[in-house]
Amino acid sequence: MNKMQEILENALVDSWVRHFPRSGRQINQPHESDAELIEVPGLPDHYLAITTDTVAEEITEGLYREPHTMGWVTIMASLSDLAAVGAEPLGLVVSVCVEPGRDAAFCDGIAEGMADACREAGVFILGGDTNSTRTISLTGCAFGLMPRKEKISRRGCEAGDILFLTGRAGMGNALALARLGNLPHEGFPERLYRPCQRLPEGQLLRRYASCCMDTSDGLLATLDQLMRLNSRGFVIELDWENALAQPALDLCARTGTPSWMMAAGPHGEFELVFTVHPATCEAFLAAARAHGFSPIRIGRVQPRPAITLASPPAPRLADGVELDMAPVRNLLATVGGDLHRYLEELRSWGRKCGLD
Amino acid sequence: MNKMQEILENALVDSWVRHFPRSGRQINQPHESDAELIEVPGLPDHYLAITTDTVAEEITEGLYREPHTMGWVTIMASLSDLAAVGAEPLGLVVSVCVEPGRDAAFCDGIAEGMADACREAGVFILGGDTNSTRTISLTGCAFGLMPRKEKISRRGCEAGDILFLTGRAGMGNALALARLGNLPHEGFPERLYRPCQRLPEGQLLRRYASCCMDTSDGLLATLDQLMRLNSRGFVIELDWENALAQPALDLCARTGTPSWMMAAGPHGEFELVFTVHPATCEAFLAAARAHGFSPIRIGRVQPRPAITLASPPAPRLADGVELDMAPVRNLLATVGGDLHRYLEELRSWGRKCGLD
Repeated sequence: MNKMQEILENALVDSWVRHFPRSGRQINQPHESDAELIEVPGLPDHYLAITTDTVAEEITEGLYREPHTMGWVTIMASLSDLAAVGAEPLGLVVSVCVEPGRDAAFCDGIAEGMADACREAGVFILGGDTNSTRTISLTGCAFGLMPRKEKISRRGCEAGDILFLTGRAGMGNALALARLGNLPHEGFPERLYRPCQRLPEGQLLRRYASCCMDTSDGLLATLDQLMRLNSRGFVIELDWENALAQPALDLCARTGTPSWMMAAGPHGEFELVFTVHPATCEAFLAAARAHGFSPIRIGRVQPRPAITLASPPAPRLADGVELDMAPVRNLLATVGGDLHRYLEELRSWGRKCGLD
Repeated sequence: MNKMQEILENALVDSWVRHFPRSGRQINQPHESDAELIEVPGLPDHYLAITTDTVAEEITEGLYREPHTMGWVTIMASLSDLAAVGAEPLGLVVSVCVEPGRDAAFCDGIAEGMADACREAGVFILGGDTNSTRTISLTGCAFGLMPRKEKISRRGCEAGDILFLTGRAGMGNALALARLGNLPHEGFPERLYRPCQRLPEGQLLRRYASCCMDTSDGLLATLDQLMRLNSRGFVIELDWENALAQPALDLCARTGTPSWMMAAGPHGEFELVFTVHPATCEAFLAAARAHGFSPIRIGRVQPRPAITLASPPAPRLADGVELDMAPVRNLLATVGGDLHRYLEELRSWGRKCGLD
């Protein structure tokens, strides 16, 4: 259960990548890094980090209904990839494709969402492209500098390393649950979902972390991808109640949804998952405290490539629950994109694993 | 007739730009440059040039039917923006949004088109994003370095400067005419449209040119934009027969289409339009010859912001024809995106100007 190709998304990426010759300037291998890292002539101490990300399905599937959310997430998604490699951002370019029927207020809303996200992160949009298309899609491309001596990527963790999160996860899946469950807006206002980049945290942890990746595809999918890339596994020692954001937990309580679903679903946010060697852990935590940053310790790296829950949620499972994320990560394709069936099948997978 | 805002496309760009605070690192103003130029700490002699471009409408409107064309143009469009500022490319990232129903052969075709374009240009795709969306859209983001001492942009030409093209234009509008006129594929095979970037030419002419812009929106729209930005006009001294590509002229002859339409339509290619001061013109032409590059002299810059044809196509117009491009550049919006009406109205504009 630890092959990269077992995950359809990885196989899809490879089906594109195999056509493209590699640049001699590129440092990272495919899948290995949230942002691409390249050598720039005349810049001996840094790599240029660059990444692009399109927001489209979240809009057409009805997860984002407010233009401000659409613009905000477009910016944060790209910046988060820079955060995961500890880069210092230089700026962004954006490409906005909007249906011809959209009015000026809608476009202004997207632009304001983008501008607010940039203000929050202290970065700037430098330019871009506008298009009139049949379906909306918003693309961000962010770039920045990463010190060569402090390179981090998704690869590098070893058994015994401590597993951290920059902040509580689950808000992305909470929004998805609320919208797919047709919860009234008051039940989960879209403004609750304003996920932030972790650029300052990434710049700090690049000195200490053995690997790092953002939770944009959901917490458990992130751990699964790190597992496959590192041939190491993770033991999750923390209860969901301490790893997930309170509004997500509240939503679960109100709707009778098991909280593990907020970690297992595919719509994430922009926290960072990272690992730190035990010997440097104390120094890392001291530096984090000095920067007012409180990482959440969620577990540790184990030699065996498996995701294990240390405290079994049901007492009958004495040895801990082992989560095979492959069927979950491929589920959207298995159910042909039917999001309501996705929710049913996800829940049934959890029951089979012993999560409920 | 020389206001930037008179052109709806410029007003649309400004309606986005006004929301975004400016970065202190950005060198160019909005509209002023085909690629954004920014200062990078630790890189004293160069600016980073970056640009993004989405190909979508050309596909949904049926201009591009072969996936190879879609991929090829996505890469060339972004590289051409780097060429227009004389940058040396470092690489590209791409975002591909494809409908779920498309088969593997179709996606492979796009990827091969991208890979072939990269090979032709000697550049590399470093990474990107894949999405499943209701309508196809393909975004490229290219970046490179530009020597600070040889900065060129769309601004800077003066009356008397010589006006050049890197190569014959019109192939983009020829493809559009063939497809909108439902010409059989054999009449104008899509493979005839494989527009190339002009990176080596851009790197050479940045030492000599007073302004530069690519013809991606068609030759006359490019001149119109340069006119508005520089408050200078252009006299076109060359016949269309010497400024337009032979397959485009052949198509016009076969279909009874006046050849000026290949310069006036909005679907361009990636030639560069640029101006050179007369005093440096001889040195420029010698350098160009040494590099096997044959620029086409098409006219000169005039003090008055107007586009004038020096040799009137109809003898009754003794003083030359003056082209008001504003109604043409706004025509797609005026006709509500109806491309067949666009063709009719464009032709009638030309008759009114005295072009036919």
